[in-house]
Amino acid sequence: MVEQGVLDIMYLNKNNSSSAASSPDKEKKNFDNLKISFTDDYPKKNAEILSGQYGINLLLVGLSLMLALSYSGSAVKEEHLLSLLISLMLLQITWMLWYIVRKGRQTCFVSEKDSDAGTSWLRGGLSLLALISLIMDAFRIGYYVGYKTCLSPAVGVYPVIHAVHTISQVHFLWFHVKDVIKTFETFARFGVIHAVFTNLLLWCNGVISEAKHFLDTHKRRLLDLGYTNITVGEEEPCCNCTTNTCSIFSHGLSYLYPFNIEYHIFVSVVLFVMWKNIGHTTEYQRNQNVVMRTNGLVAGPILGTIALASTIVVLVLYIIKVGDSAESRESAVTMFYCYGIVMLLFMCLAGSVGLLIFRSDNVPLDYSKNPSRKLDADLLFGTAIGSWLMSWCSILAVISIKSRPVYGWINFMYSLLVIIEKYIQNLFIIESLYRKQETSERDEVETIPEIYSVSAGSSLSLASSYNGIINRAFENQDKVCVSLETDQEINNQGYSHTRSLPEGSISLHTRRLAKPSKRRRVLKNIAVFLFLCNISLWILPAFGCRPQFDNGIEEETFGYTIWTTIVTVAMPLNLFYRMHSVASLLDVFRKV
Amino acid sequence: MVEQGVLDIMYLNKNNSSSAASSPDKEKKNFDNLKISFTDDYPKKNAEILSGQYGINLLLVGLSLMLALSYSGSAVKEEHLLSLLISLMLLQITWMLWYIVRKGRQTCFVSEKDSDAGTSWLRGGLSLLALISLIMDAFRIGYYVGYKTCLSPAVGVYPVIHAVHTISQVHFLWFHVKDVIKTFETFARFGVIHAVFTNLLLWCNGVISEAKHFLDTHKRRLLDLGYTNITVGEEEPCCNCTTNTCSIFSHGLSYLYPFNIEYHIFVSVVLFVMWKNIGHTTEYQRNQNVVMRTNGLVAGPILGTIALASTIVVLVLYIIKVGDSAESRESAVTMFYCYGIVMLLFMCLAGSVGLLIFRSDNVPLDYSKNPSRKLDADLLFGTAIGSWLMSWCSILAVISIKSRPVYGWINFMYSLLVIIEKYIQNLFIIESLYRKQETSERDEVETIPEIYSVSAGSSLSLASSYNGIINRAFENQDKVCVSLETDQEINNQGYSHTRSLPEGSISLHTRRLAKPSKRRRVLKNIAVFLFLCNISLWILPAFGCRPQFDNGIEEETFGYTIWTTIVTVAMPLNLFYRMHSVASLLDVFRKV
Repeated sequence: MVEQGVLDIMYLNKNNSSSAASSPDKEKKNFDNLKISFTDDYPKKNAEILSGQYGINLLLVGLSLMLALSYSGSAVKEEHLLSLLISLMLLQITWMLWYIVRKGRQTCFVSEKDSDAGTSWLRGGLSLLALISLIMDAFRIGYYVGYKTCLSPAVGVYPVIHAVHTISQVHFLWFHVKDVIKTFETFARFGVIHAVFTNLLLWCNGVISEAKHFLDTHKRRLLDLGYTNITVGEEEPCCNCTTNTCSIFSHGLSYLYPFNIEYHIFVSVVLFVMWKNIGHTTEYQRNQNVVMRTNGLVAGPILGTIALASTIVVLVLYIIKVGDSAESRESAVTMFYCYGIVMLLFMCLAGSVGLLIFRSDNVPLDYSKNPSRKLDADLLFGTAIGSWLMSWCSILAVISIKSRPVYGWINFMYSLLVIIEKYIQNLFIIESLYRKQETSERDEVETIPEIYSVSAGSSLSLASSYNGIINRAFENQDKVCVSLETDQEINNQGYSHTRSLPEGSISLHTRRLAKPSKRRRVLKNIAVFLFLCNISLWILPAFGCRPQFDNGIEEETFGYTIWTTIVTVAMPLNLFYRMHSVASLLDVFRKV
Repeated sequence: MVEQGVLDIMYLNKNNSSSAASSPDKEKKNFDNLKISFTDDYPKKNAEILSGQYGINLLLVGLSLMLALSYSGSAVKEEHLLSLLISLMLLQITWMLWYIVRKGRQTCFVSEKDSDAGTSWLRGGLSLLALISLIMDAFRIGYYVGYKTCLSPAVGVYPVIHAVHTISQVHFLWFHVKDVIKTFETFARFGVIHAVFTNLLLWCNGVISEAKHFLDTHKRRLLDLGYTNITVGEEEPCCNCTTNTCSIFSHGLSYLYPFNIEYHIFVSVVLFVMWKNIGHTTEYQRNQNVVMRTNGLVAGPILGTIALASTIVVLVLYIIKVGDSAESRESAVTMFYCYGIVMLLFMCLAGSVGLLIFRSDNVPLDYSKNPSRKLDADLLFGTAIGSWLMSWCSILAVISIKSRPVYGWINFMYSLLVIIEKYIQNLFIIESLYRKQETSERDEVETIPEIYSVSAGSSLSLASSYNGIINRAFENQDKVCVSLETDQEINNQGYSHTRSLPEGSISLHTRRLAKPSKRRRVLKNIAVFLFLCNISLWILPAFGCRPQFDNGIEEETFGYTIWTTIVTVAMPLNLFYRMHSVASLLDVFRKV
């Protein structure tokens, strides 16, 4: 193994001076110029590029297979892709085994932990998604058993291996994802990046299967509505089902896909952070055990729950109505847009209030190196592009279309709001993540010297006479902000006889003590509200509510092929954006 | 302007304590919670996200127009896109004017310069490309004059504005691109990112026009070869040319496109670095005036020139042959692949030797923050993906194809080598850019104390008796490494009576004096060779040598639509990769 030592023909720098002089033969001296070592001091940047390029190429091999599969005339069949995926998963399982065994043996193998990576709620969420993926594997096995006679064995082996892979991967994530690897760096890098890109490929595979399913449904709807020049791809294998459950399995699969897709993309993000951490020294401060305070949470959860409930109603109504006549389809699409506009308006408002609160209390941002946070910000920014592109296309289509459907301008408004909402939400989340943490402890510590500086500025006797007010403010920190406005007149009267103090300095301090708590409460409500709204906006497209296919406006401007390609590429990004926002907003909620 | 101060309704933190207490009215006190300022302390990260999102959306608006244009049934016409581009360019010109005027008035406007950004050779290269872009604008105006009666005025206005834009932009780049802006940060950020994305849009526009031109040529060739179910898009406007020069202009344009495309993408990269630099404190060391030494450059330039010359021969032969019969097309494609394999083999070899040299002399890498270098590395990595995808698709196509064309396995070999070559070249360039600079001064400075430590370790008289040897080594630094092997025996005899010295220590030192120079010479030759090879590999696809369209293998596996889409997306990335490698290799050449 290249990792373990130095290639035999080469000399280490250290031994060089003595060995060169003590050995008299000339040949060895000529070799001296080739003192090459691939070990300890192999530069980190190179190892990063080396393994990163490997990972990208892995992804591209898989992508080329998927592209070939999407062309009907190709000699590439599904089993080829599945075989590739199976072998990649097996390789990953082997590497994880090696890692666990190695770590068990060697105590100095991992010296540090990155406490920011893979928080417990994230790992919990992943386990839940993994569980649903396992159910999906069971469905797939059931489906294979029914059609065994005419399906390739790869279709049967794949879910088995996938289940093993899922279980071992979740185990790995629970116990090792926080590790900051410092030995065997290059080999570890290859292993982790292999895992990242294997999961990305599984994500791509899921996304493409789901897109196919949606396109088929869409085409069938168009056929029902009278379009004839469309061929629907055959979904069922060409033999009879030997059990009675095949249709249940294939129907159930389509509802489980979204969870499986989110599972794989989340795992690859978490593992990518682990990869970035290899060989790093964590310079940022560790998360203190933040206590999740939930007092004062009223408006956010209530409004959010209303949003979530109405979303489910809209989803059910939409799915029922859209398959019917052209008229009821129109009303379904209109309903969706109206609902979306209201929802997005509230989300924009919440995000703007959050940003205004941040502006009113300019805490310096924390620019220390933190791969996990940087990735969060980059992903929010990057995946928003998908839905921005769709929205701009919709806007252009509405402007340029000749026929005027009823929901034309509502579509315009909706698309514009999607763009603005993502713009504001990104700003809000990213600033929240980068703000230096304000724990209530910090507030207290910082305010104490300020109070004493006041006493020093005036006279000690004056200060002690106001101790009562200050202490009350301290003890009732949470209540003060509520009682502040009613107390204001009393306070003003109290100040009237102390003109020797710097003007208003005490009123400032009491406010500073009180404010963070009020601010924080509003921010927490906003985070919860946005959290639930983002879940809602994930549910809708994930379970079949895609008016982009059903309104027909964009197809008139971009043509069927281009528009379905745009939606097929942009929709998974949009779904991931929503899920990632949900995860990030949970972080925001913990932090503020 | 938000930039210039504080919004009127809001209070600054500083003034707050006094103003709140001195004003007795209650309303103002309630406002106190809204002390919002958008000025000085507006966090840098937010300004980055704010302007970055603006830029991305600008690009997406343009992209959606381009996508609509590519569908024939759309109501969007070319003049709409041109109008957008014209207004964006005008906006950028206005901003640049503001910047120049502002900088002229205020001396403290820009306090720092980033010496690594926009090196003079880069600016020189850009000016050259800009000059060709200006010629292209002249051609476009000529073309418009010919077809004036049936073309939209936008087609005539566009080249005029583009010419003004080009001139003012080159002026801006020459005198201001190194600026590290520290005041008006947020406004400046918007201006610079607007410029970045305007240029990216102009790049996209150029790429799409070029792709259309290529596809039309390709279709016409297919028609000539007997394929009938293909419709060729009409390139000519629907009226007669009023001058005699229209066909010259339209023909000339197709040869000038590649330069215009490279011009815009390079400008956006350079401006992006400027954007990244805003508000930064440059922590990395400034470039000393590196003297470009050219002694010892023999093998690299000679081999590179041979490669370049043969490339031009191959290009001419290919273009002549490929339009002929099916047989001569086959021989043209085979010739291209054979030539490519030889070329890429040599490039792989050169890159590997470079990497081995780096491994034999592990200099620590420089990880200090340097936006320009980080972007270079990211771009090399990111743009390589395009051609990797094409290559993997080709490999898959060759493996899975049923019919066996003569050049099937040569295509396989070629594609594999493309992947490996980019892999190695990226490693080589990125490591070169990250290595701490070894100037010859450093070598000398470092060696002197080592020599004296030897004298101290033994006796002074011994050391002085070897002054002759050491001084000679100093004076003939460049010659020593050549004469070292022949002198070895003499030296050994010389040492034989000085056993009191540590074994071989002097032979080590003389070697250390000599080695960097020898290593550096080999590295310089490699850099020059790769530089010329990358130019060659840029020329071929830029001027019409695209066997991906002409071999027919991939179309059989992926279908015409998917494959042309892949090539259309991946080819501009590949072209940019080659040009960017050329620029980076020039940097490598200066550094090693």
